[in-house]
Amino acid sequence: MFGESDISLGDLGERGIQDRILRARYGGTEGFGDDCALVGLVTAPSELVATTDSCPTPVVNLMAEPDFYHAGWLLATINLSDLAAAGAEPLGLVVNYTLPKATTTREFERLLDGVDECCAAHGTKVAGGDIRDGTVVQLSATAIGRCGPGSRLRRSGARAGDSLLLVGSPSYLWAAVLLATGKASLPEQARDEIWRRACRPMAQLTAGRVLAAQGLARAAMDVSDGLFATVRTLCEANGLGATVSGDFILDEAVAEVAKQSGVRPFDLAQTWGDWGLVVAVRSEDVKLATKTLREDGIAAQEIGTLTADQEITEGAAPWQGIAQERFSDDSWHGGELAKLVDDVLGVSKF
Amino acid sequence: MFGESDISLGDLGERGIQDRILRARYGGTEGFGDDCALVGLVTAPSELVATTDSCPTPVVNLMAEPDFYHAGWLLATINLSDLAAAGAEPLGLVVNYTLPKATTTREFERLLDGVDECCAAHGTKVAGGDIRDGTVVQLSATAIGRCGPGSRLRRSGARAGDSLLLVGSPSYLWAAVLLATGKASLPEQARDEIWRRACRPMAQLTAGRVLAAQGLARAAMDVSDGLFATVRTLCEANGLGATVSGDFILDEAVAEVAKQSGVRPFDLAQTWGDWGLVVAVRSEDVKLATKTLREDGIAAQEIGTLTADQEITEGAAPWQGIAQERFSDDSWHGGELAKLVDDVLGVSKF
Repeated sequence: MFGESDISLGDLGERGIQDRILRARYGGTEGFGDDCALVGLVTAPSELVATTDSCPTPVVNLMAEPDFYHAGWLLATINLSDLAAAGAEPLGLVVNYTLPKATTTREFERLLDGVDECCAAHGTKVAGGDIRDGTVVQLSATAIGRCGPGSRLRRSGARAGDSLLLVGSPSYLWAAVLLATGKASLPEQARDEIWRRACRPMAQLTAGRVLAAQGLARAAMDVSDGLFATVRTLCEANGLGATVSGDFILDEAVAEVAKQSGVRPFDLAQTWGDWGLVVAVRSEDVKLATKTLREDGIAAQEIGTLTADQEITEGAAPWQGIAQERFSDDSWHGGELAKLVDDVLGVSKF
Repeated sequence: MFGESDISLGDLGERGIQDRILRARYGGTEGFGDDCALVGLVTAPSELVATTDSCPTPVVNLMAEPDFYHAGWLLATINLSDLAAAGAEPLGLVVNYTLPKATTTREFERLLDGVDECCAAHGTKVAGGDIRDGTVVQLSATAIGRCGPGSRLRRSGARAGDSLLLVGSPSYLWAAVLLATGKASLPEQARDEIWRRACRPMAQLTAGRVLAAQGLARAAMDVSDGLFATVRTLCEANGLGATVSGDFILDEAVAEVAKQSGVRPFDLAQTWGDWGLVVAVRSEDVKLATKTLREDGIAAQEIGTLTADQEITEGAAPWQGIAQERFSDDSWHGGELAKLVDDVLGVSKF
């Protein structure tokens, strides 16, 4: 259909959007068009869990031609990542989009593609949603999942002496930022792979479920606002402190970016956007947990220990972490990439 | 605490909001502070349903000093109303708030009060949520519920010859608008009662559950965008038409407002904001359905019949309905009350 991509959502109207875009994509989903979405049939006793998050401006959209696909993928990831931290099995995602009338159908389709493909990559789907017009783009979603009774992971439940595992391969997003701002340079293939992973972060659903099912995790939280904020919050939830080693393993290409940029691997690993999990594990279970995850192809490394005193240290020194906080001056709403690199990694200081 | 009400969310920051406001209110909710909310333990086989809606500007906030309480109450109502249309039992609400940093803690507390009190009035609760700062207020929520397998109500499933029941007492919101704009005048007590009901619309959860459980409803939909839009959508979902009688019963005080304003009861009944249900019922079940609802103190009236031909008529004439549509010029985003009365009810034409 020539010119179709220039048609705006305002041109179509709510009924046109429903008939020409949403029905084609979701019409086969049971409950489509009803007042409620059918999330699923649950037959086994279940603790039902849910989480909701709004999508921030994807950092990757500051590095290339902005693409609604990235926002869609990120929206699904950040919500599914919370289910991962609970050790839950995803049942479905419910989406809520506010979009300006001028949004083109092509942009809208890219958004839906991003959400749908991310859900499919995690073995789940969009069960339903709502769309309305507004002056600014606001994308939020609610992920719904189930846990076997008693196996749900929480932030609390850890003990002093437990080890902290970081599940997932950190720093791909900010390695991409360093590459995009010329702080480092890699051969095309390695660069493309970093870019791909920066654009398509994966929630650690399998890891969360496996650790919960085997009773290997005592507490867990996803790394949504950076490693320091995550460790600090886990400590607070348990009335504990932590000592981290600062001796992080980064994947080879990411480590090379850190080296060229003059950034410590530990500092790069403290950034956000990779949606790993921090999990408290009994020290005697660390080997079993990492081995179990490795068998599923999931990277994990021990990064420190929870302590009875409430200090958070990197080795012997207080950990001066990188964190962002909402409703503060640091609250992340996009902005200049170069300034961001400076704010987050202080690269200009190197 | 003197001056506390002037403190803004930006003054508190995310951690301050969490510690000083949210923990006091929701800290006893299991899962508080975790990555996922615990919605509930489900032991019986269940069809899980979910719905999400954003809160529009409450019309009542155009008639008096704007109060976040009304937005909170409305946010909960509109989401629970979709569960009502599915005949579902509510399990919990997950909320998602974007608020400017300048929002005062008092405004925020009023918002939370509105949501929490509406949930309590419907026998459910806020299970969890997310809050972030942004330039404009955006309030959305997701309501999660369960149906016994096979008893879930849908928009489809109706047959030609079925009667249409309107569940609930219509027109309180727009009667309040007519009173506020001086089109009618009532004694203080009647006026206060109309205002109260306009501010606190109730989702028809009990009606939906009772009709679903007893197999009395073949299809249902809530009246979120006006009666005409609801009947039209129900007709489309079933490939049917409808004849409505136009002969509506309004509660006494509301009927008096209509009369004084020169508005036909039928026109007043077509407005939105009361969150009734339109339910397709076998014609032979109408008496039983209305009697059953009456025993629970719920008003219901037969308003017409579904027909095999796809016309929608008021008596013999085509029904020229009042409807709003998102992503159109009619999309509701607040505005001048006088203009709104004119747009929706055309009162100035009388």
